[in-house]
Amino acid sequence: MIRAGIIGATGYAGGELARLLLQREDVEIKWFGSKSYVGQDYTSIYQNMYQLTEAVCQSDDMNQMAEQVDVIFTATPQGLCASLISEEILSKTKVIDLSADFRIKDVSVYETWYQLKHTAPEFIREAVYGLPEINREKIKSARLIANPGCYPTCTFLSVYPLAKEGLIDLSTLIVDAKSGTSGAGRGAKTANLYCEVNESIKAYGVATHRHTPEIEEQLSHAAGKPVTINFTPHLVPMDRGILVTAYASLTEEAKKLSSEALKDIYHQYYKEEPFVRVLRGDICPETRWVKGSNFVDVNIKIDSRTNRVIMMGAMDNMVKGAAGQAIQNMNLMFGLPEDRGLRLAPMFP
Amino acid sequence: MIRAGIIGATGYAGGELARLLLQREDVEIKWFGSKSYVGQDYTSIYQNMYQLTEAVCQSDDMNQMAEQVDVIFTATPQGLCASLISEEILSKTKVIDLSADFRIKDVSVYETWYQLKHTAPEFIREAVYGLPEINREKIKSARLIANPGCYPTCTFLSVYPLAKEGLIDLSTLIVDAKSGTSGAGRGAKTANLYCEVNESIKAYGVATHRHTPEIEEQLSHAAGKPVTINFTPHLVPMDRGILVTAYASLTEEAKKLSSEALKDIYHQYYKEEPFVRVLRGDICPETRWVKGSNFVDVNIKIDSRTNRVIMMGAMDNMVKGAAGQAIQNMNLMFGLPEDRGLRLAPMFP
Amino acid sequence: MIRAGIIGATGYAGGELARLLLQREDVEIKWFGSKSYVGQDYTSIYQNMYQLTEAVCQSDDMNQMAEQVDVIFTATPQGLCASLISEEILSKTKVIDLSADFRIKDVSVYETWYQLKHTAPEFIREAVYGLPEINREKIKSARLIANPGCYPTCTFLSVYPLAKEGLIDLSTLIVDAKSGTSGAGRGAKTANLYCEVNESIKAYGVATHRHTPEIEEQLSHAAGKPVTINFTPHLVPMDRGILVTAYASLTEEAKKLSSEALKDIYHQYYKEEPFVRVLRGDICPETRWVKGSNFVDVNIKIDSRTNRVIMMGAMDNMVKGAAGQAIQNMNLMFGLPEDRGLRLAPMFP
Amino acid sequence: MIRAGIIGATGYAGGELARLLLQREDVEIKWFGSKSYVGQDYTSIYQNMYQLTEAVCQSDDMNQMAEQVDVIFTATPQGLCASLISEEILSKTKVIDLSADFRIKDVSVYETWYQLKHTAPEFIREAVYGLPEINREKIKSARLIANPGCYPTCTFLSVYPLAKEGLIDLSTLIVDAKSGTSGAGRGAKTANLYCEVNESIKAYGVATHRHTPEIEEQLSHAAGKPVTINFTPHLVPMDRGILVTAYASLTEEAKKLSSEALKDIYHQYYKEEPFVRVLRGDICPETRWVKGSNFVDVNIKIDSRTNRVIMMGAMDNMVKGAAGQAIQNMNLMFGLPEDRGLRLAPMFP
Repeated sequence: MIRAGIIGATGYAGGELARLLLQREDVEIKWFGSKSYVGQDYTSIYQNMYQLTEAVCQSDDMNQMAEQVDVIFTATPQGLCASLISEEILSKTKVIDLSADFRIKDVSVYETWYQLKHTAPEFIREAVYGLPEINREKIKSARLIANPGCYPTCTFLSVYPLAKEGLIDLSTLIVDAKSGTSGAGRGAKTANLYCEVNESIKAYGVATHRHTPEIEEQLSHAAGKPVTINFTPHLVPMDRGILVTAYASLTEEAKKLSSEALKDIYHQYYKEEPFVRVLRGDICPETRWVKGSNFVDVNIKIDSRTNRVIMMGAMDNMVKGAAGQAIQNMNLMFGLPEDRGLRLAPMFP
Repeated sequence: MIRAGIIGATGYAGGELARLLLQREDVEIKWFGSKSYVGQDYTSIYQNMYQLTEAVCQSDDMNQMAEQVDVIFTATPQGLCASLISEEILSKTKVIDLSADFRIKDVSVYETWYQLKHTAPEFIREAVYGLPEINREKIKSARLIANPGCYPTCTFLSVYPLAKEGLIDLSTLIVDAKSGTSGAGRGAKTANLYCEVNESIKAYGVATHRHTPEIEEQLSHAAGKPVTINFTPHLVPMDRGILVTAYASLTEEAKKLSSEALKDIYHQYYKEEPFVRVLRGDICPETRWVKGSNFVDVNIKIDSRTNRVIMMGAMDNMVKGAAGQAIQNMNLMFGLPEDRGLRLAPMFP
Repeated sequence: MIRAGIIGATGYAGGELARLLLQREDVEIKWFGSKSYVGQDYTSIYQNMYQLTEAVCQSDDMNQMAEQVDVIFTATPQGLCASLISEEILSKTKVIDLSADFRIKDVSVYETWYQLKHTAPEFIREAVYGLPEINREKIKSARLIANPGCYPTCTFLSVYPLAKEGLIDLSTLIVDAKSGTSGAGRGAKTANLYCEVNESIKAYGVATHRHTPEIEEQLSHAAGKPVTINFTPHLVPMDRGILVTAYASLTEEAKKLSSEALKDIYHQYYKEEPFVRVLRGDICPETRWVKGSNFVDVNIKIDSRTNRVIMMGAMDNMVKGAAGQAIQNMNLMFGLPEDRGLRLAPMFP
Repeated sequence: MIRAGIIGATGYAGGELARLLLQREDVEIKWFGSKSYVGQDYTSIYQNMYQLTEAVCQSDDMNQMAEQVDVIFTATPQGLCASLISEEILSKTKVIDLSADFRIKDVSVYETWYQLKHTAPEFIREAVYGLPEINREKIKSARLIANPGCYPTCTFLSVYPLAKEGLIDLSTLIVDAKSGTSGAGRGAKTANLYCEVNESIKAYGVATHRHTPEIEEQLSHAAGKPVTINFTPHLVPMDRGILVTAYASLTEEAKKLSSEALKDIYHQYYKEEPFVRVLRGDICPETRWVKGSNFVDVNIKIDSRTNRVIMMGAMDNMVKGAAGQAIQNMNLMFGLPEDRGLRLAPMFP
């Protein structure tokens, strides 16, 4: 039995972690950490889990938690995990951080984009970027996982095969992404009220969104050279789901290849991956087909008029984009089948 | 391994059956029946199940299917199951009919409300109304299950304890119900287009909805006398979920009881039920808290100004209102734990 | 030119008032009052009105405002208008209060339901309940209008003809109402976030909602005797719209009448009304058909099995349920054509 | 009094035309043309206009209609207008075609993208592309208007000033567009059902959408040389609205200019335009702020890291993207104030 603790259990990602872990027989959630709801029944906050747990919300005390659990998930805003973590904690328990604190290796890049002083830079090097599709082996032996951002996960998996093979000119890469509203969190802000989000779509964080350097860093690793991109997220009136539409010019080498040959690279890269589905033919990914699951659906389309490739990916931002991927990492860290608790057929409608 | 067949596998209820059964290791779907998509990959219709099955849609031939499977689910419009079923089929396989064909014992009532000649009245008596909360034992030994309607399931479980105890005057019962749009099915009708349903609410089938006699029959059994009610369904701009708000006058006996005493009757009736949750205090059921699960959440509120009780229930119409309840019945019929494959924590948001 | 001021111009009802008044050539909004946004451009709050006004938000100072305007709209929570109003103000300007402060004639009823001390009871008697369909003449000469609540407007107009004619037993009246989310206001509350409201429906304020005594008072006037009812509002995942489904038993006299005869009473009552549409045949009101307009669509259905009538009404809660009705009242008070600025064809889809 | 006829009055664009024209006192709709609903009350199709007209649907007979009206709007799928139009018709009445039949000057381009034989190529040269912001004078004297597509209108107005000034490299232009579902029309297709569209986003027509050559043609005119672009539309779960996010590399000349200088070009181009709003500062366009109006909101953001500009535009696809623009054209053709009947403040929420 794995004993788990969740810091930030009353946010949306924390709630999704709880929901998925409560359905497992080999994991026990020992600690539901919260800032605002200490002392309240957890299921008074998330009534969906009523009768599935009797837990009461506790504080976010990571030191105490580390005494009682085998793994800690931090599902909190950036800065908090870095402010709490210590060698002592990591000597007692594994930590999977769903925030951005340990995703970016260059601390000055982190501090510039997040406008925050990093309070635990000494752990950045150790932290493993928890994208199993590229770091599976490192994850297995890690103590500290930087769980990837939602947009970076979907973007990277959509673009990776062609980027890695050098078949697209990454200086032309433009990522236009669309997200459901759960990505905005559960904070009581006017901008996230039903009537403000419903029946509307907008871009936000244009040219300034914090997931940009995370995407760039991972693509730079894949390409073997620095990559600078445009990334534009949009808010969509739906609960869950991320769709990425990415554009890049084909390299001269790629132009010689057929659409089928380029598509086949995706099949090659992902044929063993349990959670990446390369769609048939010209079928475009749609978020409705992955809702509630850990799948990322990807496909590409070559535009011979412009010699560009359009790379598309769809994913549930709460699952593969947050809680599901964290659990996938946990499975790897504890030597369990990677897909345990994650063989979830997408729910439609 | 239970071998299952689904007639109407490409409708919404059929799709939900497939989705839930594909996640089980003790069930194999041998036959995905369809009227319109014969010969097509099942996952070209329901892309969410891509890579979870390689099945190709077959016809709705119940006789052939009966040779190959242990249980047949019919998730089709009323009339079809009755037109296909036979003693020979029932001698080979169990049948769980999600349509209304065998729910109503009085064939003339069926024929009046459904405006249809019943073509297999000889099986009506044998068929067991598949609401485990009242017919659990009979279901275990049944060959033919009439899986309850979505509205009747939610209404009945909301009203049952007080009806059975004789604490409400059933001649005053008014049921105002609200359903998500998946209940309207996957037929390509203008009225169900996105722009027609979105941003609107309406009543429909006022005083004429076909679930009325089904609710009345079950309540009549509970009350031990004939019951006639008002039932008004409404269409709500959401995918899933049914909410029932039911009103009735308290009997003289009930007026002497406290709110707590009346509420306690619900606790008594449902304390052993795996899928009925009696909510705490005055918390009102909300469909968001049951989405994707087999739960029905119920609660009541006494209005001392009018001496009425407001009985409320929320449920996922696709799960407890259709596919989940059908699987619950299958589990019972095959001697399996009743909740196998149905311990689904509701998905939120 | 009518000079108008709005207290609470940055709430949803205030925004709708501004939107409708800015489209008129005979009205000038001189004062956009706000609690939270003083000093900010009004169109930085409501970007839809960008370039339609250059106004800057001012305070909620009613005394100062009264010096500059001919009419003040108070679109604020209960209690505020009562706390600001005075004889001096009313001697200078007309006041149309969109809150509940002056709707209920019995101050103790107000104080009980609203849990608030009424601070200006001396004006309650003078205030005219601003439902033009019943109080048109009184409105014309009023200084202070109590603009009706959204639920009461839709409920009353749906029920009024049969109530007034004594054809329904009002002790059996049950009102089940459904509202879009704009009715919950623009306050930043977790319960009103997109992901909390979307894909869900719930009842709220069951047996305790504050619009109950307002409905009862108006129906009591119509019936000529005290009326006590059940009223249950529900929150629907849509921006705008209220649907009322009301149930009552027919009196003995009514049972002798045909459906057509009962329906005809609605036609008689509303034939001269510019904003009440009695629908044809058995067509049920739907909120999509009134969105953005000042119309209330009503219809009834007789259920001969139960001898009840189901009375239905649909309306835009922001227009006829708030700002539109307030402007209708303003038109009457200033001797203008009642429908000026309100001949708005409903927007669909 | 202008007498108008609408072919395709029962589609969404036709319905919006009717709704807007019925609110005018100087226009009378003499003919509501329909293919499927001939002989039915128009308001039995569009209940929102109940009591605003008594009209009965007539056929799509353009010759007969031309005898009775001053202007014909064709709001039908491509091909129909071309198949009906004739010199005789144009000698009697003006025609505003909302379909694509006369938008593209090169008939072979039309026939390739639309997979259709053009049956009236002789009128292509005469037809004026009805975008008042660039063709105002020509529109005034036109007999035949090719009313622009929804995506092209929003894209063009977002990109035009920089394209015209030669400040962006149009060979790098990528247009990622998002549309509400009314753009898909009112046909009863499974793909447009509520449950299929709701809670999902997808790209469609990737690299093949028919609005691509229309955008390219207009941009080519602006740039004075052929332009080839990537255009990707997406379907968004909302009724109305189009958002365009367009990306292009700045030219060397543009790189020398400040953000303010580039933005100022938009102000220069659009300062006299009644329906184009250049937003303040860095505010991103959102479709909620233009709903129900004829406005296009535009803004740009310079990304100095990549030397690209992100050009954004938001618009109501039913108004400025279809019916509103058609009426704007009608106003110009009849010598009326361009904004008559179109001074509509956007409806929020």
